[in-house]
Amino acid sequence: MRTLTLQRVKFTMGLPLLKRAIQEQAEKTKNFVSRSLVIGEVLSMADMATGVKCGIIYWLFGGAVRNLGSPAHVTKWLQPLQEQKYTGMFAMTERGHGSNVRGIQTEATFDLSAQEFVIDTPCENAEKMYIGNSMYGNYAAVFAQLILNGRSHGPHCFIVPVRDENGSLRPGVTAIDMMYKEGLHGVDNGILRFDKVRIPRENLLDKFGSVAPDGQYHSPIKDRSTRFNAMLAALTPSRLAVTFQAMGSMKLGLTIAIRYSHSRRQFGPKAKEEVKIIEHQTQNMRLMPHLATALALTFVSRYAGVLLDKDIFSGKELVNSRSLQALVAGLKAYSTWENVSCLQDCRECTGGMVVVRELLAQYTKQYEKRPLSSLLQNWAESGSDKLRTSVLAFNVDTVGSLAFLLKAVNFRERVLQRGLVARIYYKTLEQFFLAVNSCPDLEDQALLKKFCLLYGTKLVFQERAWYLEHKYFTPVASMRIRSQLLDLCDSVKDDALRVISAFNIPHTSLHAPIAGIPNPMAAWAFYPAPPHLLAREGARSPRPKLGAKL
Amino acid sequence: MRTLTLQRVKFTMGLPLLKRAIQEQAEKTKNFVSRSLVIGEVLSMADMATGVKCGIIYWLFGGAVRNLGSPAHVTKWLQPLQEQKYTGMFAMTERGHGSNVRGIQTEATFDLSAQEFVIDTPCENAEKMYIGNSMYGNYAAVFAQLILNGRSHGPHCFIVPVRDENGSLRPGVTAIDMMYKEGLHGVDNGILRFDKVRIPRENLLDKFGSVAPDGQYHSPIKDRSTRFNAMLAALTPSRLAVTFQAMGSMKLGLTIAIRYSHSRRQFGPKAKEEVKIIEHQTQNMRLMPHLATALALTFVSRYAGVLLDKDIFSGKELVNSRSLQALVAGLKAYSTWENVSCLQDCRECTGGMVVVRELLAQYTKQYEKRPLSSLLQNWAESGSDKLRTSVLAFNVDTVGSLAFLLKAVNFRERVLQRGLVARIYYKTLEQFFLAVNSCPDLEDQALLKKFCLLYGTKLVFQERAWYLEHKYFTPVASMRIRSQLLDLCDSVKDDALRVISAFNIPHTSLHAPIAGIPNPMAAWAFYPAPPHLLAREGARSPRPKLGAKL
Repeated sequence: MRTLTLQRVKFTMGLPLLKRAIQEQAEKTKNFVSRSLVIGEVLSMADMATGVKCGIIYWLFGGAVRNLGSPAHVTKWLQPLQEQKYTGMFAMTERGHGSNVRGIQTEATFDLSAQEFVIDTPCENAEKMYIGNSMYGNYAAVFAQLILNGRSHGPHCFIVPVRDENGSLRPGVTAIDMMYKEGLHGVDNGILRFDKVRIPRENLLDKFGSVAPDGQYHSPIKDRSTRFNAMLAALTPSRLAVTFQAMGSMKLGLTIAIRYSHSRRQFGPKAKEEVKIIEHQTQNMRLMPHLATALALTFVSRYAGVLLDKDIFSGKELVNSRSLQALVAGLKAYSTWENVSCLQDCRECTGGMVVVRELLAQYTKQYEKRPLSSLLQNWAESGSDKLRTSVLAFNVDTVGSLAFLLKAVNFRERVLQRGLVARIYYKTLEQFFLAVNSCPDLEDQALLKKFCLLYGTKLVFQERAWYLEHKYFTPVASMRIRSQLLDLCDSVKDDALRVISAFNIPHTSLHAPIAGIPNPMAAWAFYPAPPHLLAREGARSPRPKLGAKL
Repeated sequence: MRTLTLQRVKFTMGLPLLKRAIQEQAEKTKNFVSRSLVIGEVLSMADMATGVKCGIIYWLFGGAVRNLGSPAHVTKWLQPLQEQKYTGMFAMTERGHGSNVRGIQTEATFDLSAQEFVIDTPCENAEKMYIGNSMYGNYAAVFAQLILNGRSHGPHCFIVPVRDENGSLRPGVTAIDMMYKEGLHGVDNGILRFDKVRIPRENLLDKFGSVAPDGQYHSPIKDRSTRFNAMLAALTPSRLAVTFQAMGSMKLGLTIAIRYSHSRRQFGPKAKEEVKIIEHQTQNMRLMPHLATALALTFVSRYAGVLLDKDIFSGKELVNSRSLQALVAGLKAYSTWENVSCLQDCRECTGGMVVVRELLAQYTKQYEKRPLSSLLQNWAESGSDKLRTSVLAFNVDTVGSLAFLLKAVNFRERVLQRGLVARIYYKTLEQFFLAVNSCPDLEDQALLKKFCLLYGTKLVFQERAWYLEHKYFTPVASMRIRSQLLDLCDSVKDDALRVISAFNIPHTSLHAPIAGIPNPMAAWAFYPAPPHLLAREGARSPRPKLGAKL
């Protein structure tokens, strides 16, 4: 798997598209961030291991050079990277310091007489860990404490040679294989240890701090803590790349699960043909909110990419765009969580039929035997309801509108001021809403509007305890949200096929036989797509209408 | 992996404990179900693939013979199974019918003249799929429509030879390898296809329906639907075995994550030693509710085992214990969901430190910057609160008591009458409560009481939107539940070490170097347990006090 992935990475990095992307990165061409992010999404869909390894070389190593180095560094290192003269890696995490980068212990001590930095791993906790491409790569962007005359100036990034062009480890460098990553065997992760490895003074990426030949430290940012933050902020584009990868795998999983749900039949009225499993409320209720989330993430992460491009093109330091940084950090956490939960549901929805049946029984009892409408009636008749009207006067009648949902989520954000989750919720919903409104095709707009409403309803549904707790909802409003979620999921289940076909994932990247894609590796697993699905695909233009957007 | 697993299964099935267990199953010895379930839990902890394969042979195949066969079947098939003369498999699921067993399409047509059943797979959808041990096993318990004179009498179970003693497939049988199961490579799953395979009339497991030599069908249960339900009900013990396996892996994951969290340090006050990650509220809040759930599942699933033993020993048909069936079906769904969610959290808690930091920041802002107490003050002062007192008069002052939690969950159960989730919630909490109260050791009792309270609080916390929506809680009560959950998690985090050591999992089964267990396969991953943990283990008796229970 590793050898195969290596070949794929080589092939991919040699494609004109990728070469141009690195060129654009070096030249800071307008909108290069957005374009590179989309490439990352596509690579992840084609093969996650290839996507991850290219990401390490391009966004992490290349991004470190681009964003932490001087123009001279960019010229020196990105050109040969583009020509595949070497590959890079990104060595930030340490055994003792996963995310507390400020506390890393690797040392870069300046040797004035030799005009070199001495890179050293002083203790076990300082070992660089989980480093991708560490079993093959030539150069690492290593974060270490910059030490001058025994005094640390905080973490800085250095380019350290790890292997020569023949793949032999450089003297003083140890690489330990961390072996297999379940589900991602193609990616090599390892531990790097440096035993007084000497590098030229010029290998310090010195945009935020440099050392002159006389050993004097200079930085455009005096305060050490501010400098550190600026350095981390400069890496924001690489962070956003993770969101695009997560989105890519959500779209893959959803495409497979939704195609399967529209063809596989199970249960149904006695003595009649079994019904398509998408018709089961539970199946539907599990998949549609994830599809809406994938759409929302698509719009908001592209929006974040546009903002980054604007800042970078105008030369603005990212540390000064605090809300953009928060958005990207939040998107990384939110999208990867949603990805795990989406793929788990897709998996269960394509295999765990026992579960579906049990859930089905439960929901049926909950909603059919005690019909929601009569319940609502009861609540509406209850005299005390007026007293429960929220301080914001969220009216029952407006629960179903997007404006209401936006208002609710926005209010939650304002109350929780800097709360990450609330901010991300609001930002994604708002961006989705704006994107939909600016969609030129009216038919597409109507469809996206439904998904936008569905996404907003999902967010508010998830948080309804909070709204109730804080008296911003009446119980009646909360119940209407649940019923609205059910209705919306039901109303979009057929449109879902149009949306996934607009993801435009070629069959060669889908692999999954249960989605009606033959796979010689598992011929037995083939589950034919029903005629109406095939007809739709036959009629599909090479680039479907929605495809340009999603 | 498969070969190794096969050797392990052979070794395990040859252990006196396992041989005795099969003997007891054959003889219907008192409490044999409970004893076998605990063996299943232990096997899963030692090696999940071995546990699964033994489970297929023992609970699924053996269970089918035991519960669907006549005494003659039991004598004939279980003795040689115990002596490892052959291994079995369980062929229920079909390509077209995962859980809708009633609709299976495999046929067993009686041939009067030959006194044989002809087992046949009439179409692709009738192929038996995901059959464990199908690449090695000799006999399969196959579910098929029993057809007499062209008329089906519904699904019945037949013993069908698949391979001879040399491992060669019998004529008419096709087995297709479904290849690798991510994370469970040691288990072989495959597809079985039967092309008019002839078996003797006696191979019908005929407890619920038999065919006389003259071709007449006889059943103690006249109604076809009732008969089918009785058959499925008889398999209840095998279903419960899944819960014990899920519990086993929860305990493994929790042991690793909690040991690691008590030794790894990250972040903390400036210029001081970093704090143990278990001290971070988010780490704690993620792990402790899962630990409480593992304890609750332990008590309630053992209780279900005891009920099964009672019924079986007294000769009561399980179909008549509807609430027990519902409990076991619910436990299977609930425990496997909780298992997935628990292991995902354990994984994130032992690696995803970035996530923890982000969550931490969020929680800090939420709870520290707007102190809960002052919020509560505000609500308490609000004049309208009195009006919001619930119809059940759940009083704010009693929110912290177990009696209150029981009452709340019980009420939710009664409202949702036959709702699976609510019933399982209530049942697990109630059984946990009863088990704690009957614990003879007062120190253990006090500790378990804390976890019981934590579990109940978690349940109510999860459902708080519902209680609010239906006006059974005031907002103040709901907020108190959240704050109580935080307090409880904080209060048990040190005791958690005692609980996991009472799980009594030998280090040879733990493997994980990050839990301080050296592993020669990944020496680099070793993370030493801190001195106080090691001291505790040195002092530990071979069987810790709580160990007899958990």
